[in-house]
Formats: sequence, C-alpha cells, structure tokens
Amino acid sequence: MSKVKIIGESIPNMPWQDRPQGLVNATIWRYSNNPIIKRNPIKNVARIFNSAVMYYGKDGIEYIGVFRGERLNGLPYIYLGRSKDGIQWTFDPDGIQFVDEKGKMFLPDSPFDPRLVRIDDTWYIIWCHMFYGSAIGMAKTTDFKTFTRMENPFLPYNRNAVLFPRKVNGKYLMLSRPSDTTHTRFGDIFISESPDLVYWGKHRLVMRKGSNWWEDTKIGGGPAPIETSEGWLLIYHGVQNSCSGFVYSMGGAILDIDNPSIVKYRSDSFVFTPEELYETTGNTDNVTFPCAALCDAPTGRIAIYYGAADTYVALAFTEIDILVDFIKEHNVLSASDTGLGM
Amino acid sequence: MSKVKIIGESIPNMPWQDRPQGLVNATIWRYSNNPIIKRNPIKNVARIFNSAVMYYGKDGIEYIGVFRGERLNGLPYIYLGRSKDGIQWTFDPDGIQFVDEKGKMFLPDSPFDPRLVRIDDTWYIIWCHMFYGSAIGMAKTTDFKTFTRMENPFLPYNRNAVLFPRKVNGKYLMLSRPSDTTHTRFGDIFISESPDLVYWGKHRLVMRKGSNWWEDTKIGGGPAPIETSEGWLLIYHGVQNSCSGFVYSMGGAILDIDNPSIVKYRSDSFVFTPEELYETTGNTDNVTFPCAALCDAPTGRIAIYYGAADTYVALAFTEIDILVDFIKEHNVLSASDTGLGM
Repeated sequence: MSKVKIIGESIPNMPWQDRPQGLVNATIWRYSNNPIIKRNPIKNVARIFNSAVMYYGKDGIEYIGVFRGERLNGLPYIYLGRSKDGIQWTFDPDGIQFVDEKGKMFLPDSPFDPRLVRIDDTWYIIWCHMFYGSAIGMAKTTDFKTFTRMENPFLPYNRNAVLFPRKVNGKYLMLSRPSDTTHTRFGDIFISESPDLVYWGKHRLVMRKGSNWWEDTKIGGGPAPIETSEGWLLIYHGVQNSCSGFVYSMGGAILDIDNPSIVKYRSDSFVFTPEELYETTGNTDNVTFPCAALCDAPTGRIAIYYGAADTYVALAFTEIDILVDFIKEHNVLSASDTGLGM
Repeated sequence: MSKVKIIGESIPNMPWQDRPQGLVNATIWRYSNNPIIKRNPIKNVARIFNSAVMYYGKDGIEYIGVFRGERLNGLPYIYLGRSKDGIQWTFDPDGIQFVDEKGKMFLPDSPFDPRLVRIDDTWYIIWCHMFYGSAIGMAKTTDFKTFTRMENPFLPYNRNAVLFPRKVNGKYLMLSRPSDTTHTRFGDIFISESPDLVYWGKHRLVMRKGSNWWEDTKIGGGPAPIETSEGWLLIYHGVQNSCSGFVYSMGGAILDIDNPSIVKYRSDSFVFTPEELYETTGNTDNVTFPCAALCDAPTGRIAIYYGAADTYVALAFTEIDILVDFIKEHNVLSASDTGLGM
C-alpha cells in the first residue's frame, strides 16, 4: 500500500519491473528491454515516438494507443495501436481517419505528439497540428472506430496540450504551452477551462519555465495529470538549450486538486534525463518526452511511456511514493508557481 | 449620398476636411493640423499614441476615448479623454482605475494599444497587456465611470484584438493577431467567437500577412470593423521589415458580412503609409497605426485616428466610396483569404 493514494483504476497486468538494486538517482527507472517500439514499425512509417497509450480492457483489447508516426515523406500523422501487454504493439497500417461533426472526412494537417485522455465514457485525443502554424487539435471517440474531430480549442501558436481526466468545479480543464512558429525558445504552462469543450477561457498560468538549466528554455505538459491524495501529479518535460541543441528531460510537480493553477510542490531537479543511447542519439538527439502514464491505483505503480530521441517509444517505471517523495524533497517554488496566475 | 452604405450612426459634427485638390495617391488624406495630440500631453505622460475614440453624444460629452499614455518611467497605461470636437482632447490625469467583477481594484500590467467598441449599451475596451507575455485584456463600462475588467479572452501571446460592434449569427466576434514574446516577425489575423465574452472558440483564419513588401512581415487589426452594404470594412496595419526597422502602413479589406473569416476584397497596395515628419520620426520611426474610425453613415465620411511614430495621435479622412473603390481596384485575393480558415 502506498502512502500517497492514486485516485484511479486498477490495472493488474500493467507493464512492470521492480527498481533494480544499486542504481544511483533512479527516481524513474527504464524498462530493461527498451525501446519498445523500434525504427520502421509500419510500412511507410520510419519512426514512432511521442505517443500515448491507455488501459482499455474490453472487446478483447487490453491496451490502446495513439501513436505519432513519422512517414517516409517526413510528415507526421497519428496511428492507432493495440496491445495485450502494453509492450508489444500492433498498428493499423493507415492513419486514423477523422470525420467532422457531420460525418465528413476531416484530416488534420500533420498532427503530432498526441495525448489520450478518457473522461467518463469518451476518449479524447489531443494533438498538435498545423493551423497556419502549430496549434492544438482534438477529436473524440467512444469506440476507437469513429473519431470525430472537434474544434481547435485555442488560437495558434500552441503545443503540448493535455486534458484533465475529469471536470474540476464543473468545468473541463486543459493544460497547454503557448508557443511561436519555430523551434520555440520560450514556454510556460497555462491552464484553461471550458463548459463544453468548444469555447475556452479563464486562462491562468500554472508554472513558468524554471531557473534550473535543465528546464530554463521551456517546459510543456506530458501525460494527463494523475489524480492523487496529494493533488494532481504532473510529469512534464523541461528543455535545456545546450550548445549543441535542445535537451529534453522530465520534471515533476503537484498541483492543487481544486485549483490546479496553483503548484503545491515542484522539483528543482529533473526526475529523468536522456542517458541511454536510444535517448541520446536518434533523429533528434537527447530527447525523453513523456506522453502517457499507466497507473495501478492499488499498488501505486506508474508506467511512463516516452518518446526517445524522436525515434523510439520507450517505457520507464516508478512508484507514486518514490516520485512524490523526490518532488517534495527537491521542492522549490517561485511566486508564479504558487499564485493563481491571473 | 455614397454608393456604399455605412450601416451605423450619424455624427453630424464629426471632424472633417475635404480631400485637398492636386494630391496624388490620396485614398486617405491627413488632417491639415496634425498631429492632434503632441508630446507631454499629461503630467507624467511623455507621449500618447495608438489610441481609440468614439462618438458619445450625451452627458455633455461629444467624444470619448481611451488613450495609450507612455509614462515617464517608460511603462504604458490607459488614460481616459474627452473632447467637444474630436480634435482637442482633455485627459483625466490618472490612468483608468479598473475593478474586477467583485468591485475590487484590478490594474492590468502595462496595458497598451486600446481599442474601444460599443455593443448595444455597453462599451468595451480591448487592449494588450502583460500576462506572462503580451496578451489581450478587456474591460467594459456603461458610464465611463466604473470600468469592470473581464477575463482575458485568449492565451498569450497575442496583440491587436478588436471586437466586432455587434453579434454575428448570435455570437460575439473578435479579431486578433497571435504573436510571440518579442517584436514579433510574423503574424496573421484570426477570428474567434464567443457566446458570452468569457469563453472563446471556433477560431478561424481571416487573412495572412501579404506577399507585398509593405505587409510581408505581419498584419494586425485596426479600428473595429465598419459595417457597410459591401461587408465589414477592415482597416488594418501591415508591417514591412526594412533594413532600418519595421514600417507600419495601413491596408484595407472587406470581409463577408455573415461569415467574416472570408475576405471578399483585399487591396494589394497600402491605403496609407508614413510620409510626414511626425510619422517618419519619433520614438519609433515610420509608424502609422490605426486604432479607431468615426463614421458618419449619411455622408459616408470616415475619420481615422492613428498613432504616429509611437509618439503622437494624428487624424486622417476618407470617404467610404473612395476607400472601397480603391480596395476593389487593387483587389488581389489568395486562397487563405477566400477560405473559411478551418
């Protein structure tokens, strides 16, 4: 039994490995057989990375996911995948065919970095696509057969949006990271609310990029926030602008459960950083980019899916108590963290 | 009687001068006694520019306006001004004191470039301020005594927002120009809708920056769109990135009356560009930045208020037929203009 409670479902057959003995700095530890998705996973798709999976547990499907596939023509698209164990994945050979609300085909332009969130009986895919520049796109499905495209929640330019897995104070909430038209060299995480997932407002700052080098260029949301007895656990990415390019590490923070624009705890140290060859070398070196987390509430186990070097999908594990203890132990808050962000 | 009808009020004593004889390229002509607001207009305010005025016509006030004052400490703020003739202005010595919806003081951080729009009996001020970067702020008033700050409509980073002066298809509409954190070197005009002025969505592109040099860096909305029998007349600013800095000219376009994300006509040539010394030289050289237009519907006369060189407020005139004829004569549309901008 964990000290900190995850408020969520039980996933008894979740991918898992215990923390190896003798590791130094292992707040989050890698799956021993990483990466789990390697180059050329689908015909006409060169690489899959930055992808999101969830537990499904019906219709003979244990795990389901939305995957960023980089096609041979260099353009990204979103592919559907299914798995029995969360590790071995089979993919639909064609990208997801979205329709608009009238049932007419509506293909987003170059969608990438999808997140997957379930609220009640509906599954939402949130991604970044080209809307005269990078912007957030969304679709919903109840059966993973029909995917209905929804309105873009925000104006360009924006990236790394992720919905909260339930309404808070009667409103849908979404994190996002306002950006610009290029390889953005700034970026803070904001929160917005909506009564209907069509119109959005009451935007507040959640947290700014950090003063610590590993996150001093920009930050962005990762997996959907995880509801716990301590607040919303946020695993996010932080970016350093090194002299040979960006380095993407993972950070950890805990947001107030009723007013998540307030940060309760935020680690000044990364919780995970590129170390292995499949993270430090690839199409884009030095990227560990978390997009999904499976959580088994009874045991407190967490399996994090992350893109590695814009080339692979990899898997890492932690336990809620280990991660929360680390965040609290390294907690440093600024005024912009603890404020309402008005 | 003009060919093109302005759908709006009559302002019989509106500032006006006929077009001088013998001018070449005078689609819009300057007031002979420009600039109308000169340096050091208020104690502790060094310059007023980029400001918006409207006809008021009651309580002994003919014209009222919201003015960008640049204080001696270099920070901008919004000041209220009143005028009998639209030319000579008197200002409240202190900036506008905004309150939040509970009546508590709420001062926006460094607000600048206000626009002023009346919808029914409420007057809205829309400006740009610092919300962890440039973002759009709003307030409303019914009496120009109490100014109630409203929610920021959009996430950062954004500038040059302007409300439409009436609902279209039952929704409020706002133009804006998504930006970045610096002297943005890109920028297109988008439109967003809202049921309640709190939550915004259904964002569409209106028009991209142009291929013509005078607007090939970025564009942004100017005065509130003017309703005419041809559609919504949009006077906007277009920016060239010259080798010695930005140059701000004015462009003209006409948007579909029921679906203003569609551009019907757009002039490939500027309608106004910095020429006079008070436009080409000042705190920021070569800026003509339109923020307001008074229109007398019966005669079709238009008086444009524009910021000059980030230093002065100046005034210029045109007639609806002259401006619309010029826009149609120089009309060049692209696919992004004529589309729905989905």
